[in-house]
Amino acid sequence: MPESPSIRHATHEDIPEVLAMINELAGFENALHEVKATEASLSRTLSFAPESSSSFHEDDKPNHLPERGYARALILVDPDMRVAGMALYFYNYSTWRAAPGIYLEDLFVRPEYRKKGYGGLLIRELAKQVVGLNGGRLEWACLKWNENALNFYRGLGAKTMDEWVGLRVDGDALIKLAESEP
Amino acid sequence: MPESPSIRHATHEDIPEVLAMINELAGFENALHEVKATEASLSRTLSFAPESSSSFHEDDKPNHLPERGYARALILVDPDMRVAGMALYFYNYSTWRAAPGIYLEDLFVRPEYRKKGYGGLLIRELAKQVVGLNGGRLEWACLKWNENALNFYRGLGAKTMDEWVGLRVDGDALIKLAESEP
Repeated sequence: MPESPSIRHATHEDIPEVLAMINELAGFENALHEVKATEASLSRTLSFAPESSSSFHEDDKPNHLPERGYARALILVDPDMRVAGMALYFYNYSTWRAAPGIYLEDLFVRPEYRKKGYGGLLIRELAKQVVGLNGGRLEWACLKWNENALNFYRGLGAKTMDEWVGLRVDGDALIKLAESEP
Repeated sequence: MPESPSIRHATHEDIPEVLAMINELAGFENALHEVKATEASLSRTLSFAPESSSSFHEDDKPNHLPERGYARALILVDPDMRVAGMALYFYNYSTWRAAPGIYLEDLFVRPEYRKKGYGGLLIRELAKQVVGLNGGRLEWACLKWNENALNFYRGLGAKTMDEWVGLRVDGDALIKLAESEP
């Protein structure tokens, strides 16, 4: 049994675990009914590492992965060999730098594996990947009232983008905008 | 001379104009010195439409473009045949939907082409692309104090994500985080 946790890119074989964790995370947020993801839709939309290179190496840059999907996942395996958490992310882009970065869409550590620093391990691994890409920014979002999380993130070196507000068009508003005439 | 503006995916031939507009936008923000982008770095990091399909068609889904780059650009051409503006964007991802969407990183309309609704045309085109991808969300960010812009975006159907704050790690903090030990 290994003494420390390991982090690797998700492979196709991880899809059931990824979906399970998406549902577990939504369950904690009382939003299980909002999860439309299925194994098939994850398979279609995520990029996966080849099975043969699923163990993680320092030189395993994300741009060596297939470019088919829109997002990808890092899987954290506890020394007990069970999947303890994941980071689901996609590439963002800094125009001024003409360089990619990473946007962390979902970070999840299973409750029984918390207080072990696993969230920080996953975020640090993403920071390494941004540096490996000669990239610019590692970004994510947090609910404003979640002071515990914000303090944790600040401790990792993150700054809050307090001058900015996010805009989103989705659902019926998206259809309406797409179909509107100028 | 056409009577209405047209929108198309940027091709390699547009790189000089894209870079010019990046510099013009940074100039307005008094941040020209922060632009590190060059024609070479844009060529390396953006996806471009093939020259032969550079005119925009309804069925010209972004996923038909090469997957090499991290972001892509829509170019708006005025009836006077000059490039009047652009939208530079990348794909985001909704985990619950297991579906891609679009994040608009930079929207720019040259000053002499403003007040023509061109910003709205570019955003609407991105909304169409999200719908065409069977995607979930069109997102972007705006400075909180820019009430004119926020009202314009709300008029397009965007909601402000007021409960969320963005986090960013970049520069020295990114290197430090990547090199930190758990």
